[in-house]
Amino acid sequence: MNKPFNDYAAWLQVKTGESPAQFRIVNETGKQVQAVKECKLLLEQFYGKECLNEKAFCTLYLKEESNLEKEAYRIEKKEDDYHIAGGSEQGLLYGVYAFLLYLRVNGSLPAYTIQSEPAVSYRVINHWDNMDGSIERGYAGSSFFFSEEDLSYDPIRIEDYARLLASVGINILSFNNVNVKPAAMNLLTEKQLPKVAKLAELFRPFGIRLLISVHFDSPVLLGGLSTADPLDEKVKAWWEETTDLVYQYIPDLAGFLIKADSEFQNGPKSLGRTQADGANVLASALKKHDGVLFWRCFVYNCQQDWRDSKTDRPKAAYEEFYPLDGKFADNVYLQIKYGPTDFQVREPNSPLLGAMSDTKQALEFQLAQEYTGHQIDLYHWAVQWKEILNEPRDKQNKLKDCIGKQIQSICAVSNTGKDKNWTGHLLAQLNLFAFGKVAWNPDFSLEEITKEWIALTFGTDSEVLEKVGKILLDSRKVYEHYNAPLGIGWMVNPDIHYGPNVNGYEFSHWGTYHRASCFAIGIDRTKTGTGFTLQYDSFVQELYENKETCPEHFLLFFHRLPYTYQLKSGKTLIQHIYDTHFQGVEEVEEFLSLWDSLKEKLPEQAYESVRERLERQHKNALEWRDQINTYFYRMSGIPDEKKRLIY
Amino acid sequence: MNKPFNDYAAWLQVKTGESPAQFRIVNETGKQVQAVKECKLLLEQFYGKECLNEKAFCTLYLKEESNLEKEAYRIEKKEDDYHIAGGSEQGLLYGVYAFLLYLRVNGSLPAYTIQSEPAVSYRVINHWDNMDGSIERGYAGSSFFFSEEDLSYDPIRIEDYARLLASVGINILSFNNVNVKPAAMNLLTEKQLPKVAKLAELFRPFGIRLLISVHFDSPVLLGGLSTADPLDEKVKAWWEETTDLVYQYIPDLAGFLIKADSEFQNGPKSLGRTQADGANVLASALKKHDGVLFWRCFVYNCQQDWRDSKTDRPKAAYEEFYPLDGKFADNVYLQIKYGPTDFQVREPNSPLLGAMSDTKQALEFQLAQEYTGHQIDLYHWAVQWKEILNEPRDKQNKLKDCIGKQIQSICAVSNTGKDKNWTGHLLAQLNLFAFGKVAWNPDFSLEEITKEWIALTFGTDSEVLEKVGKILLDSRKVYEHYNAPLGIGWMVNPDIHYGPNVNGYEFSHWGTYHRASCFAIGIDRTKTGTGFTLQYDSFVQELYENKETCPEHFLLFFHRLPYTYQLKSGKTLIQHIYDTHFQGVEEVEEFLSLWDSLKEKLPEQAYESVRERLERQHKNALEWRDQINTYFYRMSGIPDEKKRLIY
Repeated sequence: MNKPFNDYAAWLQVKTGESPAQFRIVNETGKQVQAVKECKLLLEQFYGKECLNEKAFCTLYLKEESNLEKEAYRIEKKEDDYHIAGGSEQGLLYGVYAFLLYLRVNGSLPAYTIQSEPAVSYRVINHWDNMDGSIERGYAGSSFFFSEEDLSYDPIRIEDYARLLASVGINILSFNNVNVKPAAMNLLTEKQLPKVAKLAELFRPFGIRLLISVHFDSPVLLGGLSTADPLDEKVKAWWEETTDLVYQYIPDLAGFLIKADSEFQNGPKSLGRTQADGANVLASALKKHDGVLFWRCFVYNCQQDWRDSKTDRPKAAYEEFYPLDGKFADNVYLQIKYGPTDFQVREPNSPLLGAMSDTKQALEFQLAQEYTGHQIDLYHWAVQWKEILNEPRDKQNKLKDCIGKQIQSICAVSNTGKDKNWTGHLLAQLNLFAFGKVAWNPDFSLEEITKEWIALTFGTDSEVLEKVGKILLDSRKVYEHYNAPLGIGWMVNPDIHYGPNVNGYEFSHWGTYHRASCFAIGIDRTKTGTGFTLQYDSFVQELYENKETCPEHFLLFFHRLPYTYQLKSGKTLIQHIYDTHFQGVEEVEEFLSLWDSLKEKLPEQAYESVRERLERQHKNALEWRDQINTYFYRMSGIPDEKKRLIY
Repeated sequence: MNKPFNDYAAWLQVKTGESPAQFRIVNETGKQVQAVKECKLLLEQFYGKECLNEKAFCTLYLKEESNLEKEAYRIEKKEDDYHIAGGSEQGLLYGVYAFLLYLRVNGSLPAYTIQSEPAVSYRVINHWDNMDGSIERGYAGSSFFFSEEDLSYDPIRIEDYARLLASVGINILSFNNVNVKPAAMNLLTEKQLPKVAKLAELFRPFGIRLLISVHFDSPVLLGGLSTADPLDEKVKAWWEETTDLVYQYIPDLAGFLIKADSEFQNGPKSLGRTQADGANVLASALKKHDGVLFWRCFVYNCQQDWRDSKTDRPKAAYEEFYPLDGKFADNVYLQIKYGPTDFQVREPNSPLLGAMSDTKQALEFQLAQEYTGHQIDLYHWAVQWKEILNEPRDKQNKLKDCIGKQIQSICAVSNTGKDKNWTGHLLAQLNLFAFGKVAWNPDFSLEEITKEWIALTFGTDSEVLEKVGKILLDSRKVYEHYNAPLGIGWMVNPDIHYGPNVNGYEFSHWGTYHRASCFAIGIDRTKTGTGFTLQYDSFVQELYENKETCPEHFLLFFHRLPYTYQLKSGKTLIQHIYDTHFQGVEEVEEFLSLWDSLKEKLPEQAYESVRERLERQHKNALEWRDQINTYFYRMSGIPDEKKRLIY
């Protein structure tokens, strides 16, 4: 099929159908606002100029309303017209996008009032872009912000990116890598600040503020001081002066993001100070400019001896940060990865999330498919987010109940790059779309978000909606089927993190071990093991402690078990490993045939590009299946009951 | 102790003692020859100017003698004088070096006639230096031939290098990597040939001729032809013209070296031609200039599927080359690595070696410690060479009996670089020294070579000779103790090839697998297995086929065995693994204490630099011990009888 399709336009596809009405736009804000521009521009983009008509029956009244929350909007039908109101220019902008996407998803005008406001104030995209143009964990081409150690971008592309992000409610963006290399330090100096200010200008109309990733040692490396000790007066003064300078250029800068005491990035710990000491000196400098500080909690010993089975990496962040509850300035957000290790396909939630009553937290997701298939394999992150948010935090609450309370921000590492389609895998655009939706409303419907994205991207054909929907919604489960089994994680090729390597991290210094022997596999993290479970609220602790109540997908994360351990399915653990791994490959084959069956209904370029990725995924799944099964067959000596080929 | 010591001078140390006599040199050759220069220069270097005296009692008569083989020499005592004769200028040069080194090793004049000639005509050092200055498998700094994509060197250093090589009889040197990258192709063009000619000039007085590594696709990549097909007339003409040009600049060039159809280097196979077709077109172009071609036999499928247990990499070279016996031009030397895989600590000999009655062969060793400790760990290659040369070739002959017959050249990959001491590890200078000696006389005495080198480098103190000798002579055994067990090889970190990684190559495409399971380990390469043993002569075949007669150090190379298999020592295989790995570490500790006990007797800088390496070796040995033991304990489930700590 040769349906016109522009992968660059993503979920804001061009001329995709008949407009449900002819519209007239009335700006009631009394000022020039981006919402009006966007409303006109997107209506024209979707349906052609002819859908706008000064004599139209359907008038869109765009206005601000002070009784709405700043970012909230309301879309109200009054007779044939619609009143789109926002609590601010920005709220109005979100209202306009919501209205327009509604039209595209439903092919009709809304029949009821829609009112919405975001669950958290800071919905953040973190780019890990380096100034040489490379992207750490980037799988969609090089950076569209940087090249050759300089800010260097196509302003049109930046505006298009800002529109995509704003259309799903993102309002903060960090554009440089948290691993701050020498050139990127200059983003705090007059050498780069004029250019950063210009970049901020491009995002500003869309309600997106910039965040700069900074290096803890900046006072030394940039300022020439002899220490970066946060309690040193000169250091304090340096951060203040520097921050003042930055805000002269970008008065609405969101603030700073920092990775300190982590994976060879320096931090307060190495100077004998606490994480709170470290954070507060930056927070204090940001405070007078209403700036905030995102302080990452990815702090652990990355030089562990594999022989040392006492140290347990998942315990590190809680041990480091929990005792400091109440010690952080009120404009500090502790940014915590969803799991206690590192963006694995399956981990329990970080026990730190929601655990601090007197400290603001930001929940960190990853869109970049670092461990989840490099945007070659399909992975619907929101499926995992749903599970994460629905995990219990204590007897009364799920994690999602902490959102808007202890957790006041949701962040994610970007999956975009210079590839024309932004995300490498066309279907990975869904993850960017879904993240905005989820950060806005963590109580989202997975099916609805998925359906919306498919409809916006490929249209509303019911077969397409159903089959693409099935592929997407199954994708996380399928990837997990052929991956490391039962929550144990990490059986990947070191460094690149694509493809299987059972022992890839087993004898390394990264603190990530499975300790599989011919007798047993898994880590005992109960109170009689490493004691990691003790970091959870007692209800959750008990749940995970007990092999019978521990969710089976976490089983080997929390327990060390023999291969003959019987699962609830009645299968042995080893048979479960074999079965899921054969199943994973079969499921990818099913993806391929489902996809093929849509050939006539999909734009040719979309069909081909996704098919090519699915074939690569199939190859990867085969490799996972065979390496995992072979490894555990050789280790356990227990044959597959179904006598399938294992090497 | 602060004994004067110059690690750069290597085995030609400066002013190291009293001269056993005062000398007068008489040049009887009737021409200016390098031998006279070298005689004077080294005597002065060793003993100071005062050892030369026109009125001395001891006269050294230097002459050529036509009844000696070209490279042979004879040192004859006549009353108080010595007559040093060579079959050519070069033979005379070797005679002078032999005489002078004798003085230094023995501290006295020879009391008997010494006559010697080399076992093979071509004694070759292969540099794997890239034109960007890097060295493939280089562990002693960057290249002293190249930098920034150009020939670039210090002529003094080149001359000193040539002297070191010539002093042990090396007569051919390839200076660019066999993996020929684009810049290095220009070594065949007028862009670089004038510079290559200048380099050749520096080596020429020392009897060392250059060899250029060439790319099989040169006719396409350099010549712009549409094919490199060796049977194409244009290709033939191109090689002829190119070779003619090269010889205009370097009339005594030794010839070309080539790695074809190997590890992503193109070759005749990909064009449907045989290795002989490929070799002969180059050989023919070289023939009229008396040039020779070294054609490497490192041809195998490096894209194997690990699941494929039928394909057996060690079989590849024999399968490829043996059927072509007699098809190669007479100036082609098939260059064959000692083992059938790749420079492992322990492999059986390549069955191709000595197997072709009508084809010239070159035996390839490696000085660069690629798999043998990166010149961090100590490794006395000549111990392994001795074993290799003493392995049976058939019922009557050992491999060493083929030297000078089927095998007419001995080559080795260089271990030198820009480090001041040439080889990184000071004690690794021994390997360069020993290689020259061994290539000259494959029936060498290991103890003697080792003692000579120690005496030349550190002097003749008996404690130093004994203890350093013990460390060196044990070093190969010790390294093997903590390495992959019983000839199975390959349990190294991929790519870098330093440090343990049991499964590093187990699921890769390189054809190097151990297939260890909880039941058994090793590859059955007997006639009922992969059939590799069938490539050997029947006597050797039977020896290796049979578990009882197979040398135990090759056991897992040829046989798949359970961990409880009983070795001749009475130990089980698994206990042998544990014991040797604990032993290896203890032995390195013994090296350290032996070395420490010599602190007062060794030059401080030498003591310190070697000690630092021994400490790093100890760390590496610990890592090997613990990873290997842990892996096999976890796999076999069989505890160490001695209850030592395994993880």
